Amino acid sequence: MNNITSLFKIKYPIVQGGMIWCSGWELAAAVSNAGGLGLIGAGSMYPDVLEEHIRKCKAATQKPFGVNVPLLYPQTDELMEIIIHEGVKIVFTSAGNPKKYTAYLKEKGITVVHVVANKKFAKKSIEAGVDAIVVEGFEAGGHNGFEETTTMVMIPMIRKISNIPLIAAGGIGSGQSMFAAMALGADGVQIGSLFAASEESSAHSEFKQSIINADDGDTQLALKKLVPVRLIKNEFFKRIQEAKNTGASREELLELLGRGRAKLGMFEGNTTEGELEIGQVSGMIENIKPAAEIIHSLVEEFSITSQRMTHFKLL
Amino acid sequence: MNNITSLFKIKYPIVQGGMIWCSGWELAAAVSNAGGLGLIGAGSMYPDVLEEHIRKCKAATQKPFGVNVPLLYPQTDELMEIIIHEGVKIVFTSAGNPKKYTAYLKEKGITVVHVVANKKFAKKSIEAGVDAIVVEGFEAGGHNGFEETTTMVMIPMIRKISNIPLIAAGGIGSGQSMFAAMALGADGVQIGSLFAASEESSAHSEFKQSIINADDGDTQLALKKLVPVRLIKNEFFKRIQEAKNTGASREELLELLGRGRAKLGMFEGNTTEGELEIGQVSGMIENIKPAAEIIHSLVEEFSITSQRMTHFKLL
Repeated sequence: MNNITSLFKIKYPIVQGGMIWCSGWELAAAVSNAGGLGLIGAGSMYPDVLEEHIRKCKAATQKPFGVNVPLLYPQTDELMEIIIHEGVKIVFTSAGNPKKYTAYLKEKGITVVHVVANKKFAKKSIEAGVDAIVVEGFEAGGHNGFEETTTMVMIPMIRKISNIPLIAAGGIGSGQSMFAAMALGADGVQIGSLFAASEESSAHSEFKQSIINADDGDTQLALKKLVPVRLIKNEFFKRIQEAKNTGASREELLELLGRGRAKLGMFEGNTTEGELEIGQVSGMIENIKPAAEIIHSLVEEFSITSQRMTHFKLL
Repeated sequence: MNNITSLFKIKYPIVQGGMIWCSGWELAAAVSNAGGLGLIGAGSMYPDVLEEHIRKCKAATQKPFGVNVPLLYPQTDELMEIIIHEGVKIVFTSAGNPKKYTAYLKEKGITVVHVVANKKFAKKSIEAGVDAIVVEGFEAGGHNGFEETTTMVMIPMIRKISNIPLIAAGGIGSGQSMFAAMALGADGVQIGSLFAASEESSAHSEFKQSIINADDGDTQLALKKLVPVRLIKNEFFKRIQEAKNTGASREELLELLGRGRAKLGMFEGNTTEGELEIGQVSGMIENIKPAAEIIHSLVEEFSITSQRMTHFKLL
């Protein structure tokens, strides 16, 4: 029991990242049923789709679950109204200003967590009154910070300035790295890539296979002139990288990017032309497993690491 | 006692990175005298200068110390002959092919360690017969890999393929992160930035002050078209970044870079026009301390973290 398990009323301080095109009700419910915190990723959902996912998730689990809402899209107000109306008690916001919705959601009795990728936004989130923060390092998949600070550096850096419940994200793909993240000062972890490749993930099987195939160096942070995002280096990635290397402007990059690239790659399975958002830990993922088995392995590996480190003394 | 302390015959599994313009005999001897492994950084030394530093180091400590040799420069053969002639028993090689000198040095009874920044070179080093490897993550200062894999991801990734003595580097700035690195599977750590800012570092006081002043996001990996190197974002950095953003070629970047930029910044103290190589942990370094005090703090923080984590159980 710690401040993360008590905040969310869950068994293990393990949050499944609310990822676009991967985490619908099926994944969120499976994670919550296994003792973690499942999150529905609203970033790829229209309001009516989100409503359906929340309803199905409520039917599939009695355990707490939440919704992740990236504050990037025009329909955010509508998404929030559905979340409130459906009685969801936990909201993770990301990719925007934490001041925008925190007070409003908290008034409605909702636990609010904001995802940050640097010290500045950690401070802003704390000022906005969030209940916890997710601190996401450079190695994480999907959208990322301009500072490029890694999990190893950022967790102790932010722990030093605040005692707020802190969830580490980025580079965590086993119970061993979960233990390391907590040694660095985190109270819990948020895991994306492992769950993106899980059985219950709504990602296309071709995308899941790309995650399994990925090795060291197969992802990279791209589109730094727009919003930095970690992608698998496929054909599409190589084209935008080539454009960048020859000095393409923001506008040229936007045109090259077009629309619906993430859906194309992650949901429709076009792994050459789509945008494939995944973390560096994809290099260590070898199997597609059920979410419950992932949680079970995390807990077991954590315990093995804990025992090993208990016996190691410097003096 | 573990495989790193026994390999080098030292008290703590803490290696001081052999850094250009920072780690001469004074720093190496101070670290070795305090129970770590001090390394003279030969990368910024002509052969006669290295000879002088080795002799002074031998006079200043009875403990084991070593030399770091980046395999980048034309005088490498001469440097190796001096190392052998002076009876140095530990050599760290970096930035090159581990096959080039390993067998030769080992024949002379020297313990050989190679620094790698990806899985491919970890395998190559093991094949070359090195005694240990340093695995350096994206967050590290100075030269770095093209894969951009972070310490959090790379340590378990390489631990998985081999049981070779493994020294983690990059992002380690406290005993807390040292503990985390060892939880990830490392047997010891190599620390650069903290020692670059130490009292015994031969870096210019203006450079040390830049390290103290650095905050989250104040370093970045630059010159990726040449050899990636993590630098403080000063005026010089901004110019090369601007050139990159407008599509400068490799040749144009080389011309802009010119010669002696690292010496200018780190040794001569021109912090606006020089190249300032330092890791992301610079954002957490607050004081210039003697090397012995740094070692002492690392050991103490390690022990505090160890105790905290012993008491934390998931179940």
